Amino acid sequence: MTAQTLRLSTEPAAPRPQLARWARQLRPSALQEQVVLATRPGILAFSLGLPAQELFPRDALDRASARVFANRDSLQYRLPLGALKEQIVGLMKLRGVECTSEQVFLTAGSQQGMSMLALLLLNEGGKVLSERSIYPGFAQAVMAMRPRHLTVPTDLDTGVDVEAVERILATERPAFMYLIPDGHNPLGVSISLEKRQRLVEVAARYGVPLIEDDVYGFLQYGDPLPPLRALDPENVFYLGSFSKVLAPALRVGWMVVPTALTEPLSVLKEALDINTTTATQRIVSAFLEEGGFQEHVRTIAAGYRKRRDAMLSALEQHFGDVARFTRPRAGFFTYVQLPDLVDTARLLPRVADAGIAYLPGSGFCLDGSREGRSAMRLSFSNFPLERFDDVLGSLRGLLMPRDEGRP
Amino acid sequence: MTAQTLRLSTEPAAPRPQLARWARQLRPSALQEQVVLATRPGILAFSLGLPAQELFPRDALDRASARVFANRDSLQYRLPLGALKEQIVGLMKLRGVECTSEQVFLTAGSQQGMSMLALLLLNEGGKVLSERSIYPGFAQAVMAMRPRHLTVPTDLDTGVDVEAVERILATERPAFMYLIPDGHNPLGVSISLEKRQRLVEVAARYGVPLIEDDVYGFLQYGDPLPPLRALDPENVFYLGSFSKVLAPALRVGWMVVPTALTEPLSVLKEALDINTTTATQRIVSAFLEEGGFQEHVRTIAAGYRKRRDAMLSALEQHFGDVARFTRPRAGFFTYVQLPDLVDTARLLPRVADAGIAYLPGSGFCLDGSREGRSAMRLSFSNFPLERFDDVLGSLRGLLMPRDEGRP
Repeated sequence: MTAQTLRLSTEPAAPRPQLARWARQLRPSALQEQVVLATRPGILAFSLGLPAQELFPRDALDRASARVFANRDSLQYRLPLGALKEQIVGLMKLRGVECTSEQVFLTAGSQQGMSMLALLLLNEGGKVLSERSIYPGFAQAVMAMRPRHLTVPTDLDTGVDVEAVERILATERPAFMYLIPDGHNPLGVSISLEKRQRLVEVAARYGVPLIEDDVYGFLQYGDPLPPLRALDPENVFYLGSFSKVLAPALRVGWMVVPTALTEPLSVLKEALDINTTTATQRIVSAFLEEGGFQEHVRTIAAGYRKRRDAMLSALEQHFGDVARFTRPRAGFFTYVQLPDLVDTARLLPRVADAGIAYLPGSGFCLDGSREGRSAMRLSFSNFPLERFDDVLGSLRGLLMPRDEGRP
Repeated sequence: MTAQTLRLSTEPAAPRPQLARWARQLRPSALQEQVVLATRPGILAFSLGLPAQELFPRDALDRASARVFANRDSLQYRLPLGALKEQIVGLMKLRGVECTSEQVFLTAGSQQGMSMLALLLLNEGGKVLSERSIYPGFAQAVMAMRPRHLTVPTDLDTGVDVEAVERILATERPAFMYLIPDGHNPLGVSISLEKRQRLVEVAARYGVPLIEDDVYGFLQYGDPLPPLRALDPENVFYLGSFSKVLAPALRVGWMVVPTALTEPLSVLKEALDINTTTATQRIVSAFLEEGGFQEHVRTIAAGYRKRRDAMLSALEQHFGDVARFTRPRAGFFTYVQLPDLVDTARLLPRVADAGIAYLPGSGFCLDGSREGRSAMRLSFSNFPLERFDDVLGSLRGLLMPRDEGRP
């Protein structure tokens, strides 16, 4: 090699910073690409779990923010707002949970609560337990620790398979188990009361903490079941959020954790971002102070129930003969299990070209198995009420064109 | 052991969740305890780096928030605000930095930028390079990776010891080096131009990225020097924040990073908290749209310079014969080096009892050496202008009581 070619070969390429091990394999997931497809302008989307725009309490939030910004004191660095923690203790009572303000920890939405608990509880290469089909934000929250995922199946009527949980815990000791007991994302199921009782018993017996994601807990369409935290105050770490019941733009959520966890969480929170946006903490607190929270929740739950009913009746009509789907008691989603031959991921581009979108079940499957391949998650929360019927009718034709002439 | 005692010994104690390795040794630092001491009600505190309450642009932020909350669309889940990124490109020009909106990454304050870069670049047990006396939020941002800290000394007139940096880089390859080139916290020094040029050259030669924390960069009390990012757009990752120039309660900051980093940062951001509070992103953007940013920065920099001058002249009068202190060109802090016999940490409780507070230099020292033992950080940013003289006079008497009869 001559000096000349040597010089050429060491000429500075655009330097690429060396990433930590976990980050070197990062690629956008299939789901992320599907989300791009499913949110093209003009599309009628069952895809994203967005709250309905018209159910935001705009006027009350407007009044609350005016009160907050009128006060210069609201703009300074501050400790987490004690008044808001006290108010959350009151909200937790509405969910049947007894706790103290010392057990309430404020977060930038429930996703931050989950990622903080993951950082606090999980070692690199550790194990975590969850259902096979689950909210992808869970896998993201743990990814930096490159964990081994232990997974169990879910029954679409009664929720997580508790016997499978027990079989795994007999031989494995995961750092925690993650669950969405009400309005499961993506499956739309709520865990039965009997299974809730067995879950907390089994988890406590093996000393494996349960992380309960209750972001849809206030959006109930029938008699609510007790959250896991109401059944076990020591071993269940609860995640709550104002994103679905007030507004996602505020990024205020909370955890309810044993007092022993609040000190390490405080140090971690300071390390991550000092403090949850204090301006929006104050706006939420001012909103709650006005006293209309319960009435507001009744109003929006009624609004979402109306959409759920319209969706279920259209599903019955257009898919009742070929598909099985969940009948959500809470939350934003139903999960439609189509015949085995239907590949929902493969069909999505064609469906999107026709102006409709869903998210394929496979995108929610943690372990690369075929689960979800013939399923789709439909979000009804932000879909126009009068369009469920005709759009689901069209969707049937797009997904199963060969049986148009069905009875 | 009888069956009876066996049963007794396995009776459930209050279960303590098993924490990840890094979290098991977490204890509140001496500095955290000192902050508690230094913020007791009624104390005249040089301790915390708080912006001055009366320099917040309250009315303009009030108008901006009213515009944001009047629009229901502002309340929904949203992508990071493109308009704000474009506006930040304009602000960076004022700092002498050329960048594109694709290189701007929005964060919940600069602390989140730092902790995200730490998660992205640092492996467990990896190495990081910094000055020995440094902002404690840096150590917090990396603590979960349990790194080895490589440290170099700092000259109080010209900043970080670049020769020491080079000696370390000749044998060690840290994941990155962390620096606060303007208005150093806690030292108050700004790095000289010549050292800035050598720093970026040395770091690029060894392929070690520089993380530049520029949160005080807009608060200049003389001719500003170019940020490191202006000297090297590839190897310097820049952290900015609206906390010091607008209001901490908004928790909006930004990074300027090579485009290759924005995709992994986006995935990590989603994992950590979905998105920086979109409501306050919009408020900052609406504030900047009004067009008064430069005028506002001139006003507050003049306000802080007045405080700095009052503090320096009182320090000259009351400590000029015994202490050495930095004369900050930027930021909120000066660092006072007292005679070796003075132990500022030991004296703090007595000083606080007299109604005054500072933070001891030792609390900022990363490596457990004696550096900072006889030093204190004084923050002038939120101190009443007319009280510098008498309070620093009293402080002299409290720190060095035996030489009251000095000339």
